[in-house]
Amino acid sequence: MNSFGVKFRVTTFGESHGSAIGCVIDGVPAGLEIDEEYIQSEVDKRKPGLTKFATQRKESDSVQIFSGVFEGLSTGAPITLAIFNENQKSNDYENIKSLFRPSHADFTYFKKYGIRDYRGGGRSSARETAARTAAGAIAKKLLEKFGIKVQSGVFAIGGVEAESLDFEYAKTSEIFALDRLKEEAQKAAVLNAKEAGDSVGGCIFVKISNIRAGFGEPLYNKLDGALAGAMMGINGVKAVEIGEGVNASKLKGSENNDQMDKTGFMSNHAGGILGGISTGADIDIKVHFKPTPSIFLKQRTQNEQNESVEFSLKGRHDPCIAVRGSVVANAMAALTLADMLLLNASCTMDNLKKIYG
Amino acid sequence: MNSFGVKFRVTTFGESHGSAIGCVIDGVPAGLEIDEEYIQSEVDKRKPGLTKFATQRKESDSVQIFSGVFEGLSTGAPITLAIFNENQKSNDYENIKSLFRPSHADFTYFKKYGIRDYRGGGRSSARETAARTAAGAIAKKLLEKFGIKVQSGVFAIGGVEAESLDFEYAKTSEIFALDRLKEEAQKAAVLNAKEAGDSVGGCIFVKISNIRAGFGEPLYNKLDGALAGAMMGINGVKAVEIGEGVNASKLKGSENNDQMDKTGFMSNHAGGILGGISTGADIDIKVHFKPTPSIFLKQRTQNEQNESVEFSLKGRHDPCIAVRGSVVANAMAALTLADMLLLNASCTMDNLKKIYG
Amino acid sequence: MNSFGVKFRVTTFGESHGSAIGCVIDGVPAGLEIDEEYIQSEVDKRKPGLTKFATQRKESDSVQIFSGVFEGLSTGAPITLAIFNENQKSNDYENIKSLFRPSHADFTYFKKYGIRDYRGGGRSSARETAARTAAGAIAKKLLEKFGIKVQSGVFAIGGVEAESLDFEYAKTSEIFALDRLKEEAQKAAVLNAKEAGDSVGGCIFVKISNIRAGFGEPLYNKLDGALAGAMMGINGVKAVEIGEGVNASKLKGSENNDQMDKTGFMSNHAGGILGGISTGADIDIKVHFKPTPSIFLKQRTQNEQNESVEFSLKGRHDPCIAVRGSVVANAMAALTLADMLLLNASCTMDNLKKIYG
Amino acid sequence: MNSFGVKFRVTTFGESHGSAIGCVIDGVPAGLEIDEEYIQSEVDKRKPGLTKFATQRKESDSVQIFSGVFEGLSTGAPITLAIFNENQKSNDYENIKSLFRPSHADFTYFKKYGIRDYRGGGRSSARETAARTAAGAIAKKLLEKFGIKVQSGVFAIGGVEAESLDFEYAKTSEIFALDRLKEEAQKAAVLNAKEAGDSVGGCIFVKISNIRAGFGEPLYNKLDGALAGAMMGINGVKAVEIGEGVNASKLKGSENNDQMDKTGFMSNHAGGILGGISTGADIDIKVHFKPTPSIFLKQRTQNEQNESVEFSLKGRHDPCIAVRGSVVANAMAALTLADMLLLNASCTMDNLKKIYG
Repeated sequence: MNSFGVKFRVTTFGESHGSAIGCVIDGVPAGLEIDEEYIQSEVDKRKPGLTKFATQRKESDSVQIFSGVFEGLSTGAPITLAIFNENQKSNDYENIKSLFRPSHADFTYFKKYGIRDYRGGGRSSARETAARTAAGAIAKKLLEKFGIKVQSGVFAIGGVEAESLDFEYAKTSEIFALDRLKEEAQKAAVLNAKEAGDSVGGCIFVKISNIRAGFGEPLYNKLDGALAGAMMGINGVKAVEIGEGVNASKLKGSENNDQMDKTGFMSNHAGGILGGISTGADIDIKVHFKPTPSIFLKQRTQNEQNESVEFSLKGRHDPCIAVRGSVVANAMAALTLADMLLLNASCTMDNLKKIYG
Repeated sequence: MNSFGVKFRVTTFGESHGSAIGCVIDGVPAGLEIDEEYIQSEVDKRKPGLTKFATQRKESDSVQIFSGVFEGLSTGAPITLAIFNENQKSNDYENIKSLFRPSHADFTYFKKYGIRDYRGGGRSSARETAARTAAGAIAKKLLEKFGIKVQSGVFAIGGVEAESLDFEYAKTSEIFALDRLKEEAQKAAVLNAKEAGDSVGGCIFVKISNIRAGFGEPLYNKLDGALAGAMMGINGVKAVEIGEGVNASKLKGSENNDQMDKTGFMSNHAGGILGGISTGADIDIKVHFKPTPSIFLKQRTQNEQNESVEFSLKGRHDPCIAVRGSVVANAMAALTLADMLLLNASCTMDNLKKIYG
Repeated sequence: MNSFGVKFRVTTFGESHGSAIGCVIDGVPAGLEIDEEYIQSEVDKRKPGLTKFATQRKESDSVQIFSGVFEGLSTGAPITLAIFNENQKSNDYENIKSLFRPSHADFTYFKKYGIRDYRGGGRSSARETAARTAAGAIAKKLLEKFGIKVQSGVFAIGGVEAESLDFEYAKTSEIFALDRLKEEAQKAAVLNAKEAGDSVGGCIFVKISNIRAGFGEPLYNKLDGALAGAMMGINGVKAVEIGEGVNASKLKGSENNDQMDKTGFMSNHAGGILGGISTGADIDIKVHFKPTPSIFLKQRTQNEQNESVEFSLKGRHDPCIAVRGSVVANAMAALTLADMLLLNASCTMDNLKKIYG
Repeated sequence: MNSFGVKFRVTTFGESHGSAIGCVIDGVPAGLEIDEEYIQSEVDKRKPGLTKFATQRKESDSVQIFSGVFEGLSTGAPITLAIFNENQKSNDYENIKSLFRPSHADFTYFKKYGIRDYRGGGRSSARETAARTAAGAIAKKLLEKFGIKVQSGVFAIGGVEAESLDFEYAKTSEIFALDRLKEEAQKAAVLNAKEAGDSVGGCIFVKISNIRAGFGEPLYNKLDGALAGAMMGINGVKAVEIGEGVNASKLKGSENNDQMDKTGFMSNHAGGILGGISTGADIDIKVHFKPTPSIFLKQRTQNEQNESVEFSLKGRHDPCIAVRGSVVANAMAALTLADMLLLNASCTMDNLKKIYG
């Protein structure tokens, strides 16, 4: 259950305080250029310690390739990427060793597995998302070969919403802001929360462009179902919208339908997916992250002995997980699409004839 | 890709105008009472033709059991449920044979498979959800044995939102309304749309109660990820929220965190899931359906020859798919939970010792 | 666990004395001609009651298509095939209701599931193989489109072995004999066993010809591993050999190696598979079936109350399951290959470029 | 396709001349003692360079644990084991860079993937089996907790067959010989082949004891089907027999049936499996390995340019892969059983009630 995808299949491993995290990517087609620098640059985007808007923990997050690449190309064998953990001190966790941090997974992991890995989040730590990001970099290179582009950025923080989407600008923004006119207000929302020892939620926008019609495997691996599952599976995500999203439930059919003319769709309320299959229009996804549960204010909780306790967290934490979540959501979208691209390959006799003659 | 679940695994089959639809359910534990009347009663809830709020198409939707049951009990063999289609006339579709209905899956199925099954929705028809509902009835009986309850109802239609949730009342309501004080306004929204030849969107609330902590398989089959994938995979769903949902992205950590005392959680913003694993609190899901794309107003579209055309739909359609969608979302939640219940069985040595001594 | 294959995925259902058996085939590429007569003709080959060498039970085994086919072509939707059982009387089983027939699955199913379906073999009945055969017919049609041929026949019965392989002759033989010079002796072995109230084992040869190099998915879905698993999973199979088989363990490398010249392999000890991937040479498989456990001689066994009992079976049974097993082994080989053909489609960038340009 | 198992799921990675090989084991129940020394001792059994009966290549094969273990116990998170390659020189392969070694996977990997990793076997190298062995050690510890024992040894080499099976003796034998009276002749067969620059085939016997009735998941993950697939998937295996094996095809039902009395089975021709489910009797498997294809005699082959060439291999190779294959077959049997043990956990309501009350 630590694997994602069917044909482009990523298995991640590692805990926040173990010796290494990483992933094995099975199903990468042979002959794809594997660009180590690009993988590293993608991982660096979510690296902690870069700005005041993220946790100040330092990790070099250096990616190593163990297998599956020969002379710069994928060989068809599984590709293994590993990142050794440097910052394994868990002193920060001494005072919470036996209690369950509110709105963290401490409680549920303990209830499920009967084991308490008190050194931070263990397997449930956001640290694991570095492995997703590394895998996502390979997926993006595969998609690029067929023209498909996956972009993302911060749409809203603490309710301050973008009014325009500039994905190029987002790349240069310290908080991946999509709307430069809202960036300052969004940054202020993060810093205000941080200064108060609190945190704040946010919303990420992911756009997939230049995708052909036909991707998605009905009925139980639809493109929208798979994307929603992928996004909701990211730490801290509480809602996923595609196209018109929540608003679609308030509209009339005459307002929400995407009529067509001979050149194609005249609108894109659908967000690029109909019947679980891509239409060729842009796929638009909104991913809503809750505020970081790690706050420094005094909180009440339970300990392992079932007693009520009060405590305050120490350490360094992201005041807004949505910011770095933008990189992770981008990677998960790429992984989902890469899988769909491979799965679609055998779906018609026409495709098979192209391959096997 | 027509299968759902890992251990409690449902494979559905059938098209709107084929001879039968149905499902094969693999992994039902041996020794579960299989109650035909209950299955039929669940399927009847989503049966067309019952009220003026649903399509007037008539189908008896009589469920037959082909396999897997002996003397009223599941045997461990796959259970096959079939519903023969009675209403296979596709006259209504003559005028749309070669054109793509806006916001339907006609276009995308054609682009993917190169085949045009012009007799209604074919595989993408909502008719397939009868099979999900039948399978869901068996899942619900399994869950009930362990006290787990899955309930659902209409939360909003066309923006008219419930202010209270009464799942018992919803069972008796023609539109499965959760709030009797809003029911009339919600009914009016449906009928107004219907009379205008239009349709309207809506939102369903699903609540899973009395669930123990520990269900959900991290990291790529988390309970919230799986539920979101299941819900977004239902025809017409465009957004899924869990717990605080979209609103979580606007809150501070101090507002959204669920603090605990020795008796458990003091609030439930999480909606019963942390780290992808159930907390034991109620699981609260909102599922947003777009308005039915089948409307009777004149619309523009493309035909198979890539020409712009105008047309008007004929036939009988639900003015609000969310209403019957309530039954389907309920079934999908039950199927997801049943799978998690089985998957969890082998996750600790303690569990295995209970079984194997 | 009632599904076979990854991309060409067959789920079978049904018991010997239920109302229907059948299968759902998911992943059939859209646009394949689905020939009902051919499917029926394949199923008829293993139909009981045809000759004195098989059981005298009568079943018309008429195959119905429920879904997935439109105007003679596969649509990409799951194809459902069903065969209704006509001969559901289980009188023959009255005297064995509470005892475990030696070398049948009665005992193990009871121990696993705690349920006793005493009406014949239930799910473990050879009757289920009719569904495999029907699915195999579709797989064979797919393979044929790319020139691949799957043939089979009886190699040995009771130790009487063929010395030459004539697959065309086998088609006309009542016992599917591969060597007409051995056919009479093999028939005699069957009839002698039958007259003595006994049964006899046999060996099937399956040959896959005109296959291209490159099929098979290393390392845990190798072509030989998958074929061996498929064959050993057929009722009554106790050994599987590929190429030189058992004999390879007695040879020197210099004897067993297949040297090459510029035209290709100079021998085929490998049986057409190296490193789990097809070489392009014929794939040669021997499948060894035990004698039918259903014999009419007095036998000792245990009953459900754990008592020692003596009994004699009644009813009609195949004196040699290998004969009809030839048809089943053929179908399983075809299903395995069809899956490999689809899985291979996405394994290189070159293939993907052929599809997506 | 580099993963094995459903619930106890092992994904292996790495090539003979890459930087590391290893595996990720997903589904290990939380709370199992993970004994590093035991894992290392199992891996050491198949380590090259130990005796004159194996290749003289030196590798320390030191296993590192990256994840999934905390304070000596499995946590429920994926366990990653890695072995760094020390001996990455591929000088020995200079003269075969562009030609296909007969009966190796060079040819088929090139045909499938279009990539030539000429540094030895690459992904198809037997080196990968070190990862299987490490994973198998964890599986064996799990099985031991429930009393199940997996043993193996050399049954035959070059046709010299054991007449008795002493698994304890095999542990102390340099060639894992099961019959000390045949050991010298078997050793001689290996050394004779080695001195002649040739190699020799062999047969391994695997015995699984003290297993309860009920393991195996019909119909397409039967215990015998899964074991056969696992064994045939090991490099160089050409035949698999269970119980009476090939011989069953020559017997009468009256000879092959295992009659019972109140104490259980009176014989074990079945080799411990009926209907794909364990009977409780010992599971007996014979695994036939071909002779090592790497021989030093002059051979003819094809090169990448499709020319006929003659060549002689250099380097160090096992003269009989069956010897170390004994360790690998043992591991694969353990992995198969561990998966079945977990899969079986949810198969009856009785089991679920034991867990969930």
